[in-house]
Parts: sequence; structure tokens; C-alpha cells
Amino acid sequence: MSETIHIYAPATVANVACGFDTLGFAIDRPGDEVFARFSQKPGLRISAMHGDGGKLPREIEKNTATVAAQAVMDHLAMQRGVEMEIHKGLPIGSGMGSSAASAVAGAMAINELMGRPLSRKELLPFALKGEAVASGGAIHADNVGPCLLGGMILVRSNQELDTVSIDTPSNLYAAVVLPDIEILTVAARAVMRKEIPMKDAVTQWGNLGAMIAGLMKADYGLISRSLVDVIAEPYRASLIPAFHEVKQAAVGMGALGCSISGAGPAIFALCEGDQMAFKVAMGMQRVFEHHKIACKRYVSAINVNGAQRLA
Amino acid sequence: MSETIHIYAPATVANVACGFDTLGFAIDRPGDEVFARFSQKPGLRISAMHGDGGKLPREIEKNTATVAAQAVMDHLAMQRGVEMEIHKGLPIGSGMGSSAASAVAGAMAINELMGRPLSRKELLPFALKGEAVASGGAIHADNVGPCLLGGMILVRSNQELDTVSIDTPSNLYAAVVLPDIEILTVAARAVMRKEIPMKDAVTQWGNLGAMIAGLMKADYGLISRSLVDVIAEPYRASLIPAFHEVKQAAVGMGALGCSISGAGPAIFALCEGDQMAFKVAMGMQRVFEHHKIACKRYVSAINVNGAQRLA
Repeated sequence: MSETIHIYAPATVANVACGFDTLGFAIDRPGDEVFARFSQKPGLRISAMHGDGGKLPREIEKNTATVAAQAVMDHLAMQRGVEMEIHKGLPIGSGMGSSAASAVAGAMAINELMGRPLSRKELLPFALKGEAVASGGAIHADNVGPCLLGGMILVRSNQELDTVSIDTPSNLYAAVVLPDIEILTVAARAVMRKEIPMKDAVTQWGNLGAMIAGLMKADYGLISRSLVDVIAEPYRASLIPAFHEVKQAAVGMGALGCSISGAGPAIFALCEGDQMAFKVAMGMQRVFEHHKIACKRYVSAINVNGAQRLA
Repeated sequence: MSETIHIYAPATVANVACGFDTLGFAIDRPGDEVFARFSQKPGLRISAMHGDGGKLPREIEKNTATVAAQAVMDHLAMQRGVEMEIHKGLPIGSGMGSSAASAVAGAMAINELMGRPLSRKELLPFALKGEAVASGGAIHADNVGPCLLGGMILVRSNQELDTVSIDTPSNLYAAVVLPDIEILTVAARAVMRKEIPMKDAVTQWGNLGAMIAGLMKADYGLISRSLVDVIAEPYRASLIPAFHEVKQAAVGMGALGCSISGAGPAIFALCEGDQMAFKVAMGMQRVFEHHKIACKRYVSAINVNGAQRLA
């Protein structure tokens, strides 16, 4: 009986306000799990899948976890067969990096099964290949990057897959709420402008540069002033009922800033301290409940470890 | 006989590749000097002006140094008269922050004359007011900021005048060459697009974020990969004969990166070490001379002090 590898890959917040398509961070929970073991049958197959409510494809060439796993297997020219059990802990289409987590877990599972021939960074292109099947081919590493590498990740270039780890203050916490509404990624992309005024672009990159400096200097005031999005949020906010009210509540209670997580509908707020983050998360949840929208909430430090092998 | 205040304000490189309208740094030389003393006559006047070849206005409401000085005098409700002697060491219309240097020197001279009631940061809006008269009213703090505050300055917001000092590696040097050609600021602005593709904007802010991280981590490789401008350089390069050849020479000799300083025609390269910077500066100069274009060159560490009171 061969060993079973057990991987946990956490949720991530991408498009961090001023960091559209470039900045993301990992949180502790929720996350996806993948169990992988060598099998007698050649090739890769999914032996079981749980937690997706039957929504995700079981075909290995369509499932994000197995596409990523297969890419690693091809790269390593693996001869032996592998069977994989996938536990979706992450809600699908939440804006919390669900496809990225499965892809990272799939790629890591194969790497661990083979005795870890590749580094985390070397797994990046394979995990991204997995995520790409779910996102219609577009490659943005701001979910896969932090899920795989942990912490706050700046993607210098999505084309060159150049990622930079950004130190964050130890007392920086995220409050994330997920309202029970559906946003199609297609719709979230469709509302975005293809061209933007130079003025808005300068505002956005001034804020992103300052956000990086604020994080590295542990300057909460600067982080707060930089947590502004003039590119995506003004257009995507209309897809989330009560967004402005939720944001107002978070900032009013003392959050450093608040914006849409990924393409939404999840909303994140960054906070100084865990108590503030708990308070802010509950306050945001209350606004949705007031509007009769069910809402999950999560509170987490910045997860500096990213995906982990649990067994 | 009252004391004479003597201020030196250095050249600055703005629009640092990926940091269009947001990132600038000070160098040691050249610079402008202002001498100021109380006078019997009320109000502000220019007693002498040197080094501008008669090109700059002598009217106090049009000269950048005196507009900035007057703004500080008004703010402090000064009753006594002041006379000011201006020595332009900085070439006009060079892209090396000539107007900013005069404005900073003018504002600082008044502040010193009054016993320094204002901090450097508090002088920022007054110096910018001076620079604005030369730039047709547009306010961008990426020259005035580093000239006044020293070092590498990120302007988070030009509207809010929110500036951030970015630590730089001690071995980071700039090579700057100034070819003897004229670019009208109007022309440099006219070639720029008012709207830019989202894709270019994401590329630019990914690079700016990474540049900030690279500087703060003293990661020369990352600084080098981030020194890319897809916004201004591709459009302004055509205004500088042989630009691409000069850049090619700089990068070929080992510069970390090379781009247009401000709106040009000066060109800067960032380098690891002073010897590399000297070599690169000479190499860039050689290209211009090969094209029969006279060219000055400057080599400097990042000037962390900015403007100084010399007497």
C-alpha cells in the first residue's frame, strides 16, 4: 500500500484594491484538500470529489486540480498512475481563489508524491495552467501566487511569471465576508473598461507603490491611504448588492480599507489587529443580513505559509 | 547688515521609468542656488539672476523661485522686504527638474530667513506653486518632492500631496546624460495618450510595485527587471535622436535600466556602483557624440539630503 499525500491549499484575496491583477494574499481558511496516491492503473484519475455540489467537472482535462497535476506529471515524465481525491472546502465562484487552491493542491500533491523534485516557485506555471482552464485561459498569478508561496505576493509580470514576496506587518489581519449571491466571472470582466484614462492609471499606480512601501514599513496609516481602487471597484461594485453600505460599515468601524476580493462577491477588509478584524467581519455580515442576504465570514492573519502538506 | 541665506537645490530625475508622474530621485549636481537677505524695501524682489542666458522671467509673479518664495511669505504673513539673487546651475528645459530646484530654493530661503518655522514637508505645497508657473499649472510632485526631501520619493497622490520616502541601496548610482537638443514640454505632453489600454496600465503598476520592493529590499535584479516604461518612453523616445541606441549602450554595458529623465531630453541610467555609473555615463555620451550631438554627463549617488542651506 503506497503512501497517501494530503495537501491543504488556502483561500486567497486577489485584486487587493490598488493591485488589480497584481497583488494577492493568502488567508488561513477556508481551503481545498487533495489526497493523492500512486495507483496500479496508468495515468491520472479522480477517485472521488466532495464539497462541490456536483458543479465541477470530473474529467481530468477539465478539472483545475487534475489539469495542474497532469502538467506536473508531464513535466516530470511520470510513468506511474495516480489517483486523486478532491475535497472542495472553498466555495466556487466566490472571488476567494477557489480554482487557484485546487490547482495548487493538485500540482503540489504530485510534486510531494515524487519526493519534491520541484521548488514552490517552479510549480507556479503548472498550477497556473490548472487555474487557466477555469478562468477561460486568462493567466493572472495573484491567486495562485499567494496560495502556493504564502503571504502577500506582488505579481510584477503575469507574462514573465515574476512574483515578489512582500513582507507584511505581523498584526495585519483580514476580515472577509462572502454573501450568498452569484457573480459570473464573465460579467465581472465585462463591466471593466478596456481603456482607462491616464489620470486613473497614475492614481492607481501611486497607490500600489505606496501600498508596497506601507506594508514593508509596517506603516498602517500609509496602508490605509493606499487601499483605494479606481479601476475595478467602481465598476464591479454594482454587481454586489449593498457593497457601498458594507464598505462604509467596515471603514466606519476602523478597518484600514475595504474592497472586493478577486472578482467578488466576497469582500475583504484589512485591519490592524485580530479584534478589530473580528469586529469588522461581524459588522459587514450584519449589513448583508439586514438586506436578507445570507453571508459567511472569515477572519485571518496574512497566511505566510500558503499551501501545506498535512500528511 | 542682515545675514544672507544661501540655498543649494539639486537636480532631480522624475518619471523614473515605471513611475510616470509618481517616482523621482535627487542627484548631487548640477543644482540651483538662491541667496536671500532682508531688504529695506518692502516686498520681494530679484536683485540679480545668473546662468539662465536671459531666458527666465525677472518678474516675481512669473519666476518659479520668487513665486514659491512669495507663497511662503504670504503664508507666514511676512512684513519685511526680501531681495533674492538666483544662480541657475541647472540647464533649463532639460528634464532634470530645473523649475523644481529654483522653486525649492526660493521657498527654503524664506523659511530659513524666518528661522525655519516650517518643516520640509510643510514647504512642499509652496514649492509646487512655484514649479506650477513654469509647467503651465500642472502639479506633479515627483521633482519638487525629491529636491526638497532628498532621496527617492514616491508620490502616492499628487492631489493630496502624499509623498513617501523610499529607502534605496547605498550602492545605487545614477548616470545622467543631457544632449544639446531642445524638447518643448508641450510637445512631450502632446505625444502622450490620454487613455491607455488596461493591459499597459497593469504592466506599469506591476513594475512600479516591484520597483518599490526592489529598492527597499536592495534587490538589484528586481530593480533591473522593474525599470521598464510602457507608458511614456515608447511615445517620447522619438523626440530624442538616438535614444534607443543610447539606451542599448547603457544596458549593454551593465546598467540596471535606462529611460528618459522627466520629459527629457536628459536620459538616466541606474547602476550598481559608481564605477559602473561612470562607465555607463561615458558610453551614453559617446553615442550622442557619434551622432554629432554635444552632451553633458553627470554621475551621482542617490542624493539623500536634497536641498541644503550652505550659509
